[in-house]
Amino acid sequence: MKRMLLIAVATLALFPIAQVRSQEKTIAERLGYPRDAKLLIVHADDLGVAHSVNMATMKAFETGLVNSGSIMVPCPWLPEIAAYARANPQADLGLHLTLTSEWTSFRWGPVSPKDRVASLLDKDGYFKLTESDAAASADPKQVELEINAQIERARALGIQPTHLDSHMGTLYQNKELFEVFLRVARREKLPVRVAKAWAARADYMSLALNPDDVYVDRVLDINPSVAPQDWGKFYSDALKKLEPGVTEVVIHLAYDEAEMKGVTVNHPDWGAAWRQRDYDYFTSDTFRKALQENQIKLITWRELGKLIK
Amino acid sequence: MKRMLLIAVATLALFPIAQVRSQEKTIAERLGYPRDAKLLIVHADDLGVAHSVNMATMKAFETGLVNSGSIMVPCPWLPEIAAYARANPQADLGLHLTLTSEWTSFRWGPVSPKDRVASLLDKDGYFKLTESDAAASADPKQVELEINAQIERARALGIQPTHLDSHMGTLYQNKELFEVFLRVARREKLPVRVAKAWAARADYMSLALNPDDVYVDRVLDINPSVAPQDWGKFYSDALKKLEPGVTEVVIHLAYDEAEMKGVTVNHPDWGAAWRQRDYDYFTSDTFRKALQENQIKLITWRELGKLIK
Repeated sequence: MKRMLLIAVATLALFPIAQVRSQEKTIAERLGYPRDAKLLIVHADDLGVAHSVNMATMKAFETGLVNSGSIMVPCPWLPEIAAYARANPQADLGLHLTLTSEWTSFRWGPVSPKDRVASLLDKDGYFKLTESDAAASADPKQVELEINAQIERARALGIQPTHLDSHMGTLYQNKELFEVFLRVARREKLPVRVAKAWAARADYMSLALNPDDVYVDRVLDINPSVAPQDWGKFYSDALKKLEPGVTEVVIHLAYDEAEMKGVTVNHPDWGAAWRQRDYDYFTSDTFRKALQENQIKLITWRELGKLIK
Repeated sequence: MKRMLLIAVATLALFPIAQVRSQEKTIAERLGYPRDAKLLIVHADDLGVAHSVNMATMKAFETGLVNSGSIMVPCPWLPEIAAYARANPQADLGLHLTLTSEWTSFRWGPVSPKDRVASLLDKDGYFKLTESDAAASADPKQVELEINAQIERARALGIQPTHLDSHMGTLYQNKELFEVFLRVARREKLPVRVAKAWAARADYMSLALNPDDVYVDRVLDINPSVAPQDWGKFYSDALKKLEPGVTEVVIHLAYDEAEMKGVTVNHPDWGAAWRQRDYDYFTSDTFRKALQENQIKLITWRELGKLIK
């Protein structure tokens, strides 16, 4: 979940249907919190990609300050994080449904048989490098087959997902893919990462959602315009200005060491040092104090999921 | 290529057909060397498995002391080593044909569509953990499909393999698999890792080989009975006692760091420290001097391959 969120953060307008329904209960109220409560999910993406990602995220979970994450089923380190999920059934772990393979020295492909999802693959048999290339050629039926296979594989390994989201936002790229995503999520009775704030971006986002769907008010993430030395300030400022309602802060954790440098070689954005900075901030006393000072309460996707009938 | 070689090292008897043909030219003579020349290929296995394996092996190649290696096409770090192969077309790189996925936290599956090679997979869709389990259930037709797919994928990525061998020796486990292996290798006109010394192990090894086939006299590798502090002594002693002819020493290189510790967790045999010890010995002045003192000449699979008509 990356580039797409840059747009999302920039578009904080409420979406038209939500305005009409302004007297309806907010998600915070549906969860039993006051309308003005500031609720936050601290969510680590990309579990299963690399040992470094798994180790840093599992360590961050121990602090209690990072309290949710999502797993990429097609990636080679899936068995390691699946073992963690089995040993920690209370952990708030979802699936980061994956249709792209964005690095260049290290790649992966589908869970389903390759000849049944040919529209998702590049000439080398891997998922495509970018979410736009992936969405442009993806046959929605093949997308549904593949994401169903990812969910099935996760459950077979003992992962009981609490939510679904989409790696690099591929499933938000057009109406057909978004509809597949929602249909699968409803069948699974799982909440998906959708923000009310995103509705201004595309009609299909608002039109496809039912009043009973569960979504967050906004998603917050950092972006490449923030200089490394301003990392903590960006997050601390965002927490100070946090609006009431449910916010998901989407972060990417790993250690700035050989493996992750290899994975992200020549890509400083979301690279190894980036992920170390996220790790350092979200496991820090600075972050813990910011939560206290701004009266922010951590919640999880598991709580949101309980709203689904 | 692991457990099986323990047996191979223990069985240094020449095989019956070779005895009958004792007046025929040796492989050394066919290569243009004197009959008593001591010729050595220093071969790093498992390229493509992990960043640490790739980095350590590429660094070792720079010394000139490690001069050959083979690539595991189904593994996630294939693109990194394929880029190296394209940039270094003179490198002696073969394919380490792969039908097993032996670690537990980090796994991989086939290149071909999963529903076409079901006999090779475990319930989670990965290759099986052991070479004996893999061989016991493998349909030889599906093996041929998969190893052909691995060769095709490698060539598509710009790898021009100089030889073929078999990860964990799966393709040597029974007659049917060995015949598939030889048939594919002959079609590709590539030499395979077969040692005359192995023929005592199974009739099908000697019977399947033609006089025109190219093989080494023996394969040497270290095994778990050697204590870490005796690592250098084991190799130096073996070099001192090296018999004339072509020997391939099969080694496993990586750094003893986080990624490789994660890959090989709970498996000290062929683990991260093991691979660091191999790296340390085979890039050392001790090894360079042992080659000089014992008048051992390094050769490659590329030279052997030129004997194939």
